[in-house]
Amino acid sequence: MRKDGRTTNELRPIKITTDYIMHPEGSVLIEVGNTKVICNASIEDRVPPFMRGQGKGWITAEYSMLPRATEQRNIRESSKGKVSGRTMEIQRLIGRALRSVVDLESFGERTVWVDCDVIQADGGTRTASITGAFVAVALAFGVLLKNKKINQLPVKDYLAAISVGVMSTEHEVIDLNYEEDAEARVDMNIVMTGNGEFVEIQGTGEEATFSKEQLFSMLDLADRGIQQLFDIQKEALGELGELIGSERQSKGAYE
Amino acid sequence: MRKDGRTTNELRPIKITTDYIMHPEGSVLIEVGNTKVICNASIEDRVPPFMRGQGKGWITAEYSMLPRATEQRNIRESSKGKVSGRTMEIQRLIGRALRSVVDLESFGERTVWVDCDVIQADGGTRTASITGAFVAVALAFGVLLKNKKINQLPVKDYLAAISVGVMSTEHEVIDLNYEEDAEARVDMNIVMTGNGEFVEIQGTGEEATFSKEQLFSMLDLADRGIQQLFDIQKEALGELGELIGSERQSKGAYE
Amino acid sequence: MRKDGRTTNELRPIKITTDYIMHPEGSVLIEVGNTKVICNASIEDRVPPFMRGQGKGWITAEYSMLPRATEQRNIRESSKGKVSGRTMEIQRLIGRALRSVVDLESFGERTVWVDCDVIQADGGTRTASITGAFVAVALAFGVLLKNKKINQLPVKDYLAAISVGVMSTEHEVIDLNYEEDAEARVDMNIVMTGNGEFVEIQGTGEEATFSKEQLFSMLDLADRGIQQLFDIQKEALGELGELIGSERQSKGAYE
Amino acid sequence: MRKDGRTTNELRPIKITTDYIMHPEGSVLIEVGNTKVICNASIEDRVPPFMRGQGKGWITAEYSMLPRATEQRNIRESSKGKVSGRTMEIQRLIGRALRSVVDLESFGERTVWVDCDVIQADGGTRTASITGAFVAVALAFGVLLKNKKINQLPVKDYLAAISVGVMSTEHEVIDLNYEEDAEARVDMNIVMTGNGEFVEIQGTGEEATFSKEQLFSMLDLADRGIQQLFDIQKEALGELGELIGSERQSKGAYE
Amino acid sequence: MRKDGRTTNELRPIKITTDYIMHPEGSVLIEVGNTKVICNASIEDRVPPFMRGQGKGWITAEYSMLPRATEQRNIRESSKGKVSGRTMEIQRLIGRALRSVVDLESFGERTVWVDCDVIQADGGTRTASITGAFVAVALAFGVLLKNKKINQLPVKDYLAAISVGVMSTEHEVIDLNYEEDAEARVDMNIVMTGNGEFVEIQGTGEEATFSKEQLFSMLDLADRGIQQLFDIQKEALGELGELIGSERQSKGAYE
Amino acid sequence: MRKDGRTTNELRPIKITTDYIMHPEGSVLIEVGNTKVICNASIEDRVPPFMRGQGKGWITAEYSMLPRATEQRNIRESSKGKVSGRTMEIQRLIGRALRSVVDLESFGERTVWVDCDVIQADGGTRTASITGAFVAVALAFGVLLKNKKINQLPVKDYLAAISVGVMSTEHEVIDLNYEEDAEARVDMNIVMTGNGEFVEIQGTGEEATFSKEQLFSMLDLADRGIQQLFDIQKEALGELGELIGSERQSKGAYE
Repeated sequence: MRKDGRTTNELRPIKITTDYIMHPEGSVLIEVGNTKVICNASIEDRVPPFMRGQGKGWITAEYSMLPRATEQRNIRESSKGKVSGRTMEIQRLIGRALRSVVDLESFGERTVWVDCDVIQADGGTRTASITGAFVAVALAFGVLLKNKKINQLPVKDYLAAISVGVMSTEHEVIDLNYEEDAEARVDMNIVMTGNGEFVEIQGTGEEATFSKEQLFSMLDLADRGIQQLFDIQKEALGELGELIGSERQSKGAYE
Repeated sequence: MRKDGRTTNELRPIKITTDYIMHPEGSVLIEVGNTKVICNASIEDRVPPFMRGQGKGWITAEYSMLPRATEQRNIRESSKGKVSGRTMEIQRLIGRALRSVVDLESFGERTVWVDCDVIQADGGTRTASITGAFVAVALAFGVLLKNKKINQLPVKDYLAAISVGVMSTEHEVIDLNYEEDAEARVDMNIVMTGNGEFVEIQGTGEEATFSKEQLFSMLDLADRGIQQLFDIQKEALGELGELIGSERQSKGAYE
Repeated sequence: MRKDGRTTNELRPIKITTDYIMHPEGSVLIEVGNTKVICNASIEDRVPPFMRGQGKGWITAEYSMLPRATEQRNIRESSKGKVSGRTMEIQRLIGRALRSVVDLESFGERTVWVDCDVIQADGGTRTASITGAFVAVALAFGVLLKNKKINQLPVKDYLAAISVGVMSTEHEVIDLNYEEDAEARVDMNIVMTGNGEFVEIQGTGEEATFSKEQLFSMLDLADRGIQQLFDIQKEALGELGELIGSERQSKGAYE
Repeated sequence: MRKDGRTTNELRPIKITTDYIMHPEGSVLIEVGNTKVICNASIEDRVPPFMRGQGKGWITAEYSMLPRATEQRNIRESSKGKVSGRTMEIQRLIGRALRSVVDLESFGERTVWVDCDVIQADGGTRTASITGAFVAVALAFGVLLKNKKINQLPVKDYLAAISVGVMSTEHEVIDLNYEEDAEARVDMNIVMTGNGEFVEIQGTGEEATFSKEQLFSMLDLADRGIQQLFDIQKEALGELGELIGSERQSKGAYE
Repeated sequence: MRKDGRTTNELRPIKITTDYIMHPEGSVLIEVGNTKVICNASIEDRVPPFMRGQGKGWITAEYSMLPRATEQRNIRESSKGKVSGRTMEIQRLIGRALRSVVDLESFGERTVWVDCDVIQADGGTRTASITGAFVAVALAFGVLLKNKKINQLPVKDYLAAISVGVMSTEHEVIDLNYEEDAEARVDMNIVMTGNGEFVEIQGTGEEATFSKEQLFSMLDLADRGIQQLFDIQKEALGELGELIGSERQSKGAYE
Repeated sequence: MRKDGRTTNELRPIKITTDYIMHPEGSVLIEVGNTKVICNASIEDRVPPFMRGQGKGWITAEYSMLPRATEQRNIRESSKGKVSGRTMEIQRLIGRALRSVVDLESFGERTVWVDCDVIQADGGTRTASITGAFVAVALAFGVLLKNKKINQLPVKDYLAAISVGVMSTEHEVIDLNYEEDAEARVDMNIVMTGNGEFVEIQGTGEEATFSKEQLFSMLDLADRGIQQLFDIQKEALGELGELIGSERQSKGAYE
């Protein structure tokens, strides 16, 4: 039993609100326990310089926290004049993860800008960002589809992420809140696709190590937890969600 | 009659949600029409270097917009590595306005950090920030009072702000939304206190000018509109709101 | 009677030296009491990216102080690697004010760069900058006119600025020097045009407020003081000054 | 058989030269195939502000590449004025990995600065940096021990890292060179300790995914490859290497 | 005969105006032909961190040009957010040169900040800056002496600087104006003291070289020109100038 | 006799290793005593914006030190976010020196990027950088020649640099190591060409001065020392070295 009453394999309550902000093509508020992230996906009709002329699209992500999303106020990165290493790591991770399930070849020379802004933090902000951003990106592509700028949803599969860890008591747990995260010996973030494959595994023992057995336990926990996230994403996306993977299938024959 | 159906002296619907984010001492979501700003007030138990040793407190504000709070996505200031002139102007204005109604001498060497983060923008973000931030600051001082760190609420009077302008049709209007703001010949932001005094008047004719008569009409519009904001603030603050000005009164005798 | 012997509505001695620096198209040294500002206007034969292809010109301003223009030496902004909020506010104000009296449509895709460099400061540097910059800009357009790059002076009206304020004694005064500025409860900067209209009103009560009556007294003081500035500008511009407004008149018929 | 003639589980030739640069307390040149990294460990007799007063030490790492370490010249990060996200990720990884096998409590308020400078790059620079940095850090602590500033080597176990990946042919391979890295579907970096535990697992499918079976194959490859690295580290460290883990053992009784 | 009518060894007209700006302890406007530099010396009652606790003073210099000091407007370094290599070179040179004739041991833990701001440029701005800054520094020390904060003028000798060069016609000339500087094959800046010693020699052949004979001719030209600068400095300093070197003499006995 | 046993006119042992790093067109490790610098020359097939369309090439240099190249660890310039004045001075010097012996007209619109990275420092890093960079640049042009991208080696003459100085004992010495450099009253860096001409003379008395006689002694020392450097460069370049100057000779007739 964990401090907040959950069992080791129990996720916190999760809620995805779509169309949260009015301007972006795709906008989602994702709440995972007390962690709340606004995920906005914006379509820009051009690609960054290094991609020009290839006829392909691009997806990139930015991540930020409001200064007082956390217990202690953090200095704003715009005031410091530079983005921290932690922020860079997270935004690179989000972008990479999303690109793994989107067919970049099929939506023209467009960029999808994904903005994940944490308005309240209680652990797991990067995994909540990925899970929410996936929905926002699907919604944004839905707008392109509706406006007939593309013919098929370029989303090949579902994508979600969760944290797992090893507590100082050597128990493996899923979906760590901030207090647990601070106590954990090992912290691992796992990103998976709807068909059960891995996209990203990042396991870290800060001043600690972990065994192969602990690794396998964590992978199992994550696998089962992520299935629940897919269900919540599907519900949030409704009919649009049924088109996910269709692009892959129709292309399948000649791939 | 204006495009959105309002009369020239009609405010948009305004809503203040208190205790919006869980960590800050004071937290407010203010909605003015489609403009939505999270105003968080954080108490830090020290003052900036230039204030040390004077036994006084300080209030400072930071302002930011989510990249896609607006119709077009803006580049994040943390990515650009510097804060724009517009942002600096606004955060200086918010800080100055709040300091005009708070007795800096009466809450010790503490800093109140006010963070105004616009999550959705449709004109009037700086005035909404001031109006919402006032409530967040009062709430934060309420926490200090409850914890007996101070004896009286150091808030001398109510404070709110509204925009007024002259449209290209030469009509004066209040509380301009984004579309009106883009069309207006003259744009003015006015900050007033509960006792009807001015704290700040910033009127600007971008590639245009305005007469004394137009100025007076705008001041009248603002004066009446701001009264409505005070009512909404009072309702949001409840009992705490009744303590506003008490510090001034009790000190009055020996000032 | 004020500390320096002036009456409340008395300006300090003002002197405008034209052709002060040899390279710029327009160059002025303006002295307002002990405040001395070099105002240089440079013509560049292109506009910034956001203006390209519109067939219009642009005016932008930069403001700086020598490190020891003030009583205490300030760190150079180039050494700090960033421009302060105060500087940004002032340079945005100067640019906006100048654009209000210049017909941007009538001098082609050119940029007028206005550099206001304070070499000695004793209060009122931003208003002196505007008053001097107006003359420098007119001189620069005079060069374009002389070289037949434009047909008419694109300056629609005179423009000048002055500060007014409320002292701690509740007296309203004009043209505050540094010592008065530091003591004043309310500080207001006003920019007006030759035909008596306002371009910009910026009134601020730092940790103080002001009434409608005080506002009106300050506006009256400013109105009368600015008339004297126009006389000094006219004298400095000589024959060229007589062409101001001619562009507006000749266009008037078909506007 | 791979392009360079290696089998899938074959490392490139590895060479560690100790005492490479004369000033640092610990200095190593590590060569892994054509990848060459100078790893310098410097002891500073104080800790960063966030660690002060705890009586503990700290280890931090910086990573850089000479502009022409790579096939195409890269712009120097000092010229760009900021460190890239990739660099930040790598230096955070190196620091974290080293801290996992060092007892921070046992060498006083000192900082070990680890500088990994890649002078020639051909894939695997971050894993070579970790493997080389471990030796440099051990050497630096050896100097402290010799100078009697500490009583025992605060290194709890060996530490090394290697890359593994899945090629587009679906074969898993170890120690990818640059050409292989560019072709690989999945890239994974693994850091392990002498007792066979994991410190860090970072697996990434850029625009690709991987199955649990592929993950297990990669882990096995890494496990066996890292054993060879430990042998090379032991040889490089000589007698000093025999003291590794001794601190843990002697403390073991009362932990 | 040179384009502007001067002989090869003829300086341009030079004028030094003292007490030019009112706030600095020492302030000078130096005019060398059309080159005009404001040199301000400010006394700060502390030294930079690396000098603290040594009981010695420090002199440091900053150099800048107004954006339109030159024929083409330059972007302001504060806007670019960094100081150019050229500026850094010049300000390091000015500081070094001044320190060579000031006894840093004899004015306590104070810093002399020297600001050289070029308001109009026509070649030779760095040498004019040194020549003018020397006078400003002497004036600033004069204030300390008058206020009895020091007992003797800590200036050991006069100091002045001039440029020499080799034109494309192979003639050596002194005090090059901007046009000559652009044409010259070799450019040399020489700083000397009143007793005829060198402080700094910086000779550069940009895409060119020079012989030992040419070097000697340039040194001779400089030597004779600098004598004239000393006369102008002496006249500008008046009685204060007679105290220069006195500190050295009185200390001479026990040095 | 000097502390390290050398006579006043004796260079430290010098070694130039060519083809040190595999990717650059020209790569050299130069060792001067304990000073070790990697000099890489990279060819880029375009020139910087200010050179475009002139049909000429450009040579530019960057200089850096590993953080622990020195006795005390220096903060990395990429971490500080800006390049120091010292670094800028040195890289400007290296670029200028190399351009003086290369015919920029004869290798098309290409840029030679020269990177001098000091991996171990013991005085004289800037002169070692120039001497080594010359060889790297010649090697890089050798590659262009071999690949028939140019017809002749665009190197007009040999180029090398050395430091000389005046010790506190008033002795002039050559090739100062770090300890001597710290003690020296006067420090001078001299760059010369194979035909005995000067390219650059930078002599500095930090808090000291020097006489004409001392200058001449230093020039003589440098002249003789640099001859030895040319021999070492010739040996390192082998056959390629014989082509140096050939371009000048063949062009000579019609120059």
